[in-house]
Amino acid sequence: MTSEHLSALDQLIALLPDGSVLTDPDLTAGYRQDWAADPTAGHPAAVVRVMCTEDVQTVLRWATEHQVPVVPRGAGSGLSGGSSAVDGCIVVSTERMRDITIDPVARVAVTQPGLMNAEVKKAASEHGLWYPPDPSSFEICSIGGNAATNAGGLCCVKYGVTTDYVLGLKVVLADGTAISLGGPLLKDVAGLSLTKLFVGSEGTLGIITELTLRLIPAQPPTLTVVASFDSVAEAADAVLAITSNIRPAMLEFMDHASINAVEDSVRMGLNRQARALLLAQSDAQGAAGDLEIETIVAACENNGATEVFATDDQAEGDAFTAARRAVFPAVQALGSLMLEDVGVPMRQLPELITGVEAIAEDLDVLICTVAHAGDGNTHPLIVFDPSDPDMTERARIAFGRVMDLAIALGGTITGEHGVGRIKRDWLPTQLGEDVMALNRKIKDALDPLGILNPGAVIAAK
Amino acid sequence: MTSEHLSALDQLIALLPDGSVLTDPDLTAGYRQDWAADPTAGHPAAVVRVMCTEDVQTVLRWATEHQVPVVPRGAGSGLSGGSSAVDGCIVVSTERMRDITIDPVARVAVTQPGLMNAEVKKAASEHGLWYPPDPSSFEICSIGGNAATNAGGLCCVKYGVTTDYVLGLKVVLADGTAISLGGPLLKDVAGLSLTKLFVGSEGTLGIITELTLRLIPAQPPTLTVVASFDSVAEAADAVLAITSNIRPAMLEFMDHASINAVEDSVRMGLNRQARALLLAQSDAQGAAGDLEIETIVAACENNGATEVFATDDQAEGDAFTAARRAVFPAVQALGSLMLEDVGVPMRQLPELITGVEAIAEDLDVLICTVAHAGDGNTHPLIVFDPSDPDMTERARIAFGRVMDLAIALGGTITGEHGVGRIKRDWLPTQLGEDVMALNRKIKDALDPLGILNPGAVIAAK
Repeated sequence: MTSEHLSALDQLIALLPDGSVLTDPDLTAGYRQDWAADPTAGHPAAVVRVMCTEDVQTVLRWATEHQVPVVPRGAGSGLSGGSSAVDGCIVVSTERMRDITIDPVARVAVTQPGLMNAEVKKAASEHGLWYPPDPSSFEICSIGGNAATNAGGLCCVKYGVTTDYVLGLKVVLADGTAISLGGPLLKDVAGLSLTKLFVGSEGTLGIITELTLRLIPAQPPTLTVVASFDSVAEAADAVLAITSNIRPAMLEFMDHASINAVEDSVRMGLNRQARALLLAQSDAQGAAGDLEIETIVAACENNGATEVFATDDQAEGDAFTAARRAVFPAVQALGSLMLEDVGVPMRQLPELITGVEAIAEDLDVLICTVAHAGDGNTHPLIVFDPSDPDMTERARIAFGRVMDLAIALGGTITGEHGVGRIKRDWLPTQLGEDVMALNRKIKDALDPLGILNPGAVIAAK
Repeated sequence: MTSEHLSALDQLIALLPDGSVLTDPDLTAGYRQDWAADPTAGHPAAVVRVMCTEDVQTVLRWATEHQVPVVPRGAGSGLSGGSSAVDGCIVVSTERMRDITIDPVARVAVTQPGLMNAEVKKAASEHGLWYPPDPSSFEICSIGGNAATNAGGLCCVKYGVTTDYVLGLKVVLADGTAISLGGPLLKDVAGLSLTKLFVGSEGTLGIITELTLRLIPAQPPTLTVVASFDSVAEAADAVLAITSNIRPAMLEFMDHASINAVEDSVRMGLNRQARALLLAQSDAQGAAGDLEIETIVAACENNGATEVFATDDQAEGDAFTAARRAVFPAVQALGSLMLEDVGVPMRQLPELITGVEAIAEDLDVLICTVAHAGDGNTHPLIVFDPSDPDMTERARIAFGRVMDLAIALGGTITGEHGVGRIKRDWLPTQLGEDVMALNRKIKDALDPLGILNPGAVIAAK
């Protein structure tokens, strides 16, 4: 940063409430990276811990005037480097924007972006209501970040993803203009679908300062099935047999390495010998629920399950779900991770999962695969030791090959984590030149100076 | 059209398969208007009945070269003048693009835009699957038009609107480039949410030539409640009492005039004395369904219902639903119509419905109101005699006042029909200057010459 910039920064500090701006490198260092630990992350000039829409407007007006990059940041739990800092940027952290109100009659939540997903769920549940989207990280990821990445989770197979629940947004545009889109309207087609455009835009088009979320009645009690298999292919076939007949409330997959990583860390009594495990739930009620469970059990048995366990004990079902959510931290105990998030059309799921196994074997790297199998979205977790350059290189090659495989199968490089910076170089291969050009046209129309999260999703200008 | 244009038109005819292009004014006249009967509709230079994506590319490349406006058209059942012809334009009719394939394992339909909504439903049902969105006009509206307007319907209160089911699109852009967005992926966040941007764009950003639609398992049997009320306010209060407790599978409202128009035309045995009627369904199963029906019945009784009738007879329930769908043609028998589509946040529904009554009384015009009450979306149908200039003027004033009322209540001028040309002048009042500017920026970025459906949604250049 030049001295001219430094004096501009002093102006910004003066424009914002006392205590909003961090410039001490020891403090700003904590805002350089998200969970993707992007090695190319830069050093921010400052972190602004905004309290309201107006603060964000102040930052963006200033940033437009001085052409300084701005990187929006929620809880920093992103897995694609979407909030990696850029050298000399202002990080806008929404961590202090934590108000929420629930309207139980309109069945909506109006929330600021800094609340954790789990806090939104809790506020809704106090009125007997439910905000379904549930990333595995729901206790540590912010609702603003969820909207910015169009986050998914475990319940999406039946209940959809974040965009299906976002009815309205307040957004600050690159030039500091604050706009309101949508609102507590369950149907609204007035003008272009701009609310939906901002969801999943990863901070490249604007900064979300308020969300209006659709809530639905509390989820009814669930029935749970756990099934073990001798091969990943059999488990994947069982998934197709389930989803082509019913829409389960959850349908998760864990491979051998994931099962054992979890058992090492939380001891759920999972079958350590199994090559694959499926965890399925139904929340249909009465005879309908029993029929769904019968369908799931039969699909597993007909596809070679070695063990099938069904329970209507809610606590037991929750414990299995918690074990599934524990895979990511459990695998982290094994080494550094490169996290995949590839998805394919349902029919290609067996080929993706066996293909990932083959890549791991071929490159001699450990890949633990968990998957939101019911919607074809998998998380191969590539484990490596960063002090071993050869292994690191093989892990890097595996990372690219898994994405190449997903693209070749008609799939996506990211089902729910976002492109961020880590996956940006693969996006053109998936989308093709014409769709990339369209992405760029919209980015340029909304952020002509390219100051909003430069380098995320699309290469910086 | 100038003679230079005429010779250009001959070039276009030569570029397209034989029989694709209609230029006879007697034939093209049938493509001038949609159901909104927009009096300002112009005369097309030609109608191209495209067969494939390449035909649409041919038209748009030619139109870009010659700067000729292009108006996309599905089945012509639009209610906002979104496919009103523009003088000298080319109407691109998708009526002959009628292929569909269903993949029951992936649970998706890949369809061309010209199929009727009902035909998509039928193709899905042959595999035990369901495409939920159900505009009242489902037998005569095309699936491409449904996507272009983000159409809604009766089931949306529980099952969402068209955009919730569109996983992928093929779109031809203004310059003739064909792009593929999304696909049979249940989760995909790679790049900006462009699929969602095209849904509801009313043909102003591109022409949809293929859709990949999410299907879900067939709807289970429904239970039905019909309740009569002495006032519209009591019925609206009952709606809130229902939706703040459960999510019904359908929750429809009819006022006195609508009830009687239907009885005049189809004789369902509805209570002709009632000032309002609610029609609600639950598709929850077993005890859960019984509980929902009890909740609905209690909500009606506690809010002054004079008569409440519940049935588990599927045929009887379907007959009531058909009666509800018959309101629009039944009211058409009373005179010419100006169709409203205003929606409000749920809490404001009583105020909107009573406010519309007051507008009708004040201006001495007949307004029949039906509503997808469960999502706050109402259709006040303003009846007038076009040979009576004074009544026509009062109807026109009522049309505007109803939209002004919805906007004042924090609502929308259109919940599911689209802005088209009929409601364009009210859009800036709802959205405000900054959001209008954003709409225009995106329009200009994607269609710099302004040839795609000029004058729809946004004023023509």
